[in-house]
Amino acid sequence: MTIPTPDARRIPTPSCPPPDIVRCASMELVVSDLTASRDFYVDVLGLVVTEETEDAVYLRTLEEFIHHNLVLRQGPVPAAAAFSYRVRTPEDLDRAVAFYSELGCRVQRRADGFVRGVGDSVRVEDPLGFPYEFFHDVEHVERLAWRYDLHTPGALVRLDHFNQVTPDVPRAVAFMQTLGFRVTEDIQDAEGTTYAAWMRRKPTVHDTAMTGGDGPRMHHVAFATHEKHNIIAICDKLGALRLSDRIERGPGRHGVSNAFYLYLRDPDGHRVEIYTQDYWTGDPDNPVVTWDVHDNQRRDWWGNPVVPSWYTEASPVLDLDGNPQPVVARTDSSEMAVTIGADGFSYTRPDDAADALPSWKQGEYKLGHQL
Amino acid sequence: MTIPTPDARRIPTPSCPPPDIVRCASMELVVSDLTASRDFYVDVLGLVVTEETEDAVYLRTLEEFIHHNLVLRQGPVPAAAAFSYRVRTPEDLDRAVAFYSELGCRVQRRADGFVRGVGDSVRVEDPLGFPYEFFHDVEHVERLAWRYDLHTPGALVRLDHFNQVTPDVPRAVAFMQTLGFRVTEDIQDAEGTTYAAWMRRKPTVHDTAMTGGDGPRMHHVAFATHEKHNIIAICDKLGALRLSDRIERGPGRHGVSNAFYLYLRDPDGHRVEIYTQDYWTGDPDNPVVTWDVHDNQRRDWWGNPVVPSWYTEASPVLDLDGNPQPVVARTDSSEMAVTIGADGFSYTRPDDAADALPSWKQGEYKLGHQL
Amino acid sequence: MTIPTPDARRIPTPSCPPPDIVRCASMELVVSDLTASRDFYVDVLGLVVTEETEDAVYLRTLEEFIHHNLVLRQGPVPAAAAFSYRVRTPEDLDRAVAFYSELGCRVQRRADGFVRGVGDSVRVEDPLGFPYEFFHDVEHVERLAWRYDLHTPGALVRLDHFNQVTPDVPRAVAFMQTLGFRVTEDIQDAEGTTYAAWMRRKPTVHDTAMTGGDGPRMHHVAFATHEKHNIIAICDKLGALRLSDRIERGPGRHGVSNAFYLYLRDPDGHRVEIYTQDYWTGDPDNPVVTWDVHDNQRRDWWGNPVVPSWYTEASPVLDLDGNPQPVVARTDSSEMAVTIGADGFSYTRPDDAADALPSWKQGEYKLGHQL
Amino acid sequence: MTIPTPDARRIPTPSCPPPDIVRCASMELVVSDLTASRDFYVDVLGLVVTEETEDAVYLRTLEEFIHHNLVLRQGPVPAAAAFSYRVRTPEDLDRAVAFYSELGCRVQRRADGFVRGVGDSVRVEDPLGFPYEFFHDVEHVERLAWRYDLHTPGALVRLDHFNQVTPDVPRAVAFMQTLGFRVTEDIQDAEGTTYAAWMRRKPTVHDTAMTGGDGPRMHHVAFATHEKHNIIAICDKLGALRLSDRIERGPGRHGVSNAFYLYLRDPDGHRVEIYTQDYWTGDPDNPVVTWDVHDNQRRDWWGNPVVPSWYTEASPVLDLDGNPQPVVARTDSSEMAVTIGADGFSYTRPDDAADALPSWKQGEYKLGHQL
Repeated sequence: MTIPTPDARRIPTPSCPPPDIVRCASMELVVSDLTASRDFYVDVLGLVVTEETEDAVYLRTLEEFIHHNLVLRQGPVPAAAAFSYRVRTPEDLDRAVAFYSELGCRVQRRADGFVRGVGDSVRVEDPLGFPYEFFHDVEHVERLAWRYDLHTPGALVRLDHFNQVTPDVPRAVAFMQTLGFRVTEDIQDAEGTTYAAWMRRKPTVHDTAMTGGDGPRMHHVAFATHEKHNIIAICDKLGALRLSDRIERGPGRHGVSNAFYLYLRDPDGHRVEIYTQDYWTGDPDNPVVTWDVHDNQRRDWWGNPVVPSWYTEASPVLDLDGNPQPVVARTDSSEMAVTIGADGFSYTRPDDAADALPSWKQGEYKLGHQL
Repeated sequence: MTIPTPDARRIPTPSCPPPDIVRCASMELVVSDLTASRDFYVDVLGLVVTEETEDAVYLRTLEEFIHHNLVLRQGPVPAAAAFSYRVRTPEDLDRAVAFYSELGCRVQRRADGFVRGVGDSVRVEDPLGFPYEFFHDVEHVERLAWRYDLHTPGALVRLDHFNQVTPDVPRAVAFMQTLGFRVTEDIQDAEGTTYAAWMRRKPTVHDTAMTGGDGPRMHHVAFATHEKHNIIAICDKLGALRLSDRIERGPGRHGVSNAFYLYLRDPDGHRVEIYTQDYWTGDPDNPVVTWDVHDNQRRDWWGNPVVPSWYTEASPVLDLDGNPQPVVARTDSSEMAVTIGADGFSYTRPDDAADALPSWKQGEYKLGHQL
Repeated sequence: MTIPTPDARRIPTPSCPPPDIVRCASMELVVSDLTASRDFYVDVLGLVVTEETEDAVYLRTLEEFIHHNLVLRQGPVPAAAAFSYRVRTPEDLDRAVAFYSELGCRVQRRADGFVRGVGDSVRVEDPLGFPYEFFHDVEHVERLAWRYDLHTPGALVRLDHFNQVTPDVPRAVAFMQTLGFRVTEDIQDAEGTTYAAWMRRKPTVHDTAMTGGDGPRMHHVAFATHEKHNIIAICDKLGALRLSDRIERGPGRHGVSNAFYLYLRDPDGHRVEIYTQDYWTGDPDNPVVTWDVHDNQRRDWWGNPVVPSWYTEASPVLDLDGNPQPVVARTDSSEMAVTIGADGFSYTRPDDAADALPSWKQGEYKLGHQL
Repeated sequence: MTIPTPDARRIPTPSCPPPDIVRCASMELVVSDLTASRDFYVDVLGLVVTEETEDAVYLRTLEEFIHHNLVLRQGPVPAAAAFSYRVRTPEDLDRAVAFYSELGCRVQRRADGFVRGVGDSVRVEDPLGFPYEFFHDVEHVERLAWRYDLHTPGALVRLDHFNQVTPDVPRAVAFMQTLGFRVTEDIQDAEGTTYAAWMRRKPTVHDTAMTGGDGPRMHHVAFATHEKHNIIAICDKLGALRLSDRIERGPGRHGVSNAFYLYLRDPDGHRVEIYTQDYWTGDPDNPVVTWDVHDNQRRDWWGNPVVPSWYTEASPVLDLDGNPQPVVARTDSSEMAVTIGADGFSYTRPDDAADALPSWKQGEYKLGHQL
């Protein structure tokens, strides 16, 4: 799969090899009220506390054996502070330093890590403006896979992926490919605009995705459950706690990835996806699936409307000094505008006219403009 | 539970006892294209064909042992032709004749039934304008409960209930109580308006419900699955067949009834619910659950917006000559208007202001008015 | 369905009508170690404590609105002290007194109940030797159906049924029919022996069953979950707690009832079934399903062997003074003997020879005899 | 993890690197009645026919994009003819040839493949006596992941793993490690005997496992479903088809792998596992889980007995001429003998005496010896 990128925008390919990334492993989130966030992730979602300090909580999923998959850190501005990846060997940290240094990125390395539980680590401000972290050395903890006495109806068993908002998706994808990522699916239109792309290191649909929009921003972090009823149980519990307004979108079936999904918003508005059942992508010639942006089943296989907030809202990301990165506006077409906006259209069947969509499938944004 | 009804509107209570109704048993739908409807109910939803004639198809669910739960009949105007109930004894048909005759209703009785597979039957135009049928004598067929070789991922195992649109809910409820129905749940407001009520003969949440709106119209007929994943499988299959536009609302969890649900629209727009897991209501003092109309979790426990079409659209019902019944406008407040309309409001937590609802919970109708 | 009973053994039909039983509602179990039993039913199985005293714990399921479904009472001999049924009206208690008095049974009535939470109650030693209780007046408590914050992965939502061991099944069935029960399924052989029968008041497969064996004894009490994965979650949790030896049989699919099941043994050896998804039986002409005792799928639809303990072990039942009832030996053929015993046989397909069963389907008892 | 192997038995490590294996990809089974086998795998289990010839059927799972995961070939002796793995690049076939040639193994290479749909391929008789195949070039076919209209209740979505019977497990494991496999779990005893080991290339618990016993033989091939109810649906369907005797063991939860499982026997007795939900093992330092052979939850987390046939029966494997490989007897202790045999023991809790196991957990073999 080649996504053409005008040379002028292209991020150069470093001469030295990229680090060998095993998987997305952890996200660090700055939160405005640590108690409220802890309540949400621990008491509501059931993540397990590995360790906590005065200003941070380290959480993991039930099948994880490394120290954490999520760090909540009290801070002044809710934001994503690190997208953290595990690399295969200690030497891959040297490779990360060399790779990003050659690109002129800001790079920091700390032998004792930036957070608890992790040793030698590298953090960078990547060419797209995101705070990426790489580590190999990590504390092992009990894998609670067999501890069914601790599982809840909505048990989260793995960190699955990140999702990043960036204005120029082809440019971002091309860069991620130099870092060793492979595209598994994307959304395009007939005019050649790419609206989003999914990329993987581990053999699932993604370790991270690039979503077109004003960025750099963090769109969401996703945790996996075993089955679909686990996701429904999370919704049911939120209802029981009178927290149903934390449910932003779903549950539903994605077209892209074929996974069953739910999007929540945490107390600071950080978006969390709960996700289950995508497919094996680990073959070297795994077929890339390209979706037409006007296909109304691409983002929800059942054609249920995507709420506008899902397209427009996202979390700031921080630079290495902890300041929010400035956001650059997307200049390519907006997926929301071309699908449910005043001039946009979506179809269920490619050969049917767009206006054949029944009212209940058009979505609130479209309807808003029509009234 | 008493829902006060001004005497003037009250339907008199007959002096003779009502028939002993066992359960809702079958619906007869007039469809404009029998082939298209058969495709939908048989090939997509997996209902089982018991018998078919040139102009009608008789369908049943997988755990049914009587001849049919749904009759599709080719006709000029898509409509509901009969809400059919099974009664306990043959003598209950005499009671039905006496009961409705005393009310001045049009009553027909046919010793050999109005449809295939059913013997002696009574059809009436009830005081609310609905075509009700009662029968006891019925042909037995194989109960396919154990025939897992015939079950599909979205297997429909029972007819669960009907739902009727009527302008004056308290009047309708009072009448249904004289017919022996008990209220299990309802939606009211602090001013005393009743928006909907659920009523049962069998010990589930309902055999039928009265939904406030212009009526008499048929809101939906509901079939049950065993588990929630069966309902999701129906959505997934509709996506695969590029028929996702048949999904009108859901899947979701109801507040009322606590059941997991999905609403579909058949090729004529008749609404079909797929429903699973409500609760036992058979005790004589089963507590009635009353929901505040402004509670955003009453119709969807997760607070997801109800699409306007679900409130406004419904199927005509026929009189005993096969002509559509005239529709009387609702004069009480509309549930849609008081909750998501320009002057309406909904809350997730009773003590929070209504405007605390995040944008993604307000629904398209509300947003439409705001833009 | 008629099960012939020699007149000599037949229990006379009282001249007065039986009480109108709504459903099986509660069981009282005497346990030898209240703390151990509470741990099992509350901490492991997740039943909800409504009330507790020094020597008793009152438990209910998550969808129950009456005070309790299970009473654990500390006592010297582990036994079943009461099979308790709810009746429709207060007057049905008078009917119960008259009905059993006419049969010459011991009858006690207490205006303030035998246990907490229940008012006027009647207890009897029935003609089969079982301690039956009837009540109408009962304290209402919160129905926790919507309290998903309290639900566990193995949530028990209803008391479903009892199961009683009795030596003469046809005699027991005939008596229960005079009490107003209807048979839904049974197991017979070609020679006319009845091995077990299932009987209902509420429209499920049973409120109680009669299992042929030395009796009167209590075979099990059953609680329902919503879905099959809930039952699997209970097994998984027992494994995590290193209590897997509480699992006696299953999980599996019953032939009889078509339900998904699991049998556990509590700390005193009382058997508890977890059960989900049988079918509607409420029609007056509901077809009775008769299974051949040699059909290897009758007790487990997948043909998995029934462990001998399941056939042979059961709990004593108490008389109204709290003493264990003497046990009468079954004289009819034993189901275990005719199916997996040295001279017994079972088949998967009726027209295949019994010895066509592969070794893994013959069960331990059979194999034991063969070695 | 190091499993010590006496030098004398050790298979030498070739000087040339092994092929880079991506995953287990396909198995070729010789069957005695192609029609009967096709019925089982296609009509009962729902595998998809990619292609068929007069004497072979090529089948794939619903999420597969390569030509096949299972080849059924008519032949005189039911056996496993090839354990086939996909390698990363065409050059890995050269590496396979060199690797096995240096070991003195018989090696065949065919530019146009040994079966339909696959190009350049290498087949070897490996040092353990198994017929291994490696290929890279393969025909792509439609991935049916989104084709929910074709999914059945028991949908098989992936080939998950193989399982091989071999007399000397440590020797086999050491060899497989030179081939690039990593151990994820194993079963040992305090005396240092290894009874079985699980090894992976893809980041799941295994691509293949070595089970101690007379070998080389094929123990089973395993297909994955999405959820546990899919496995239950397969059992239910087998019951409906009166084929429940194809169920050999389960369904249950494995201790090893933590997966939910079911073992079937096909018309020739070839064992097929249905499997779902193990865990991520792709980190370089993934912790190895070692189980005590006497832990009664190691093979079934619920402590349900393993039937003797599961330990003792397996399929022959073929040499490159299509003749069955001679079987070498295991000389190490047998897992069955040390756990449920006359002198064996198992425990639920390590500190409880072995005889604390209730009768229903001891299994038929043990009971057989006791009688």
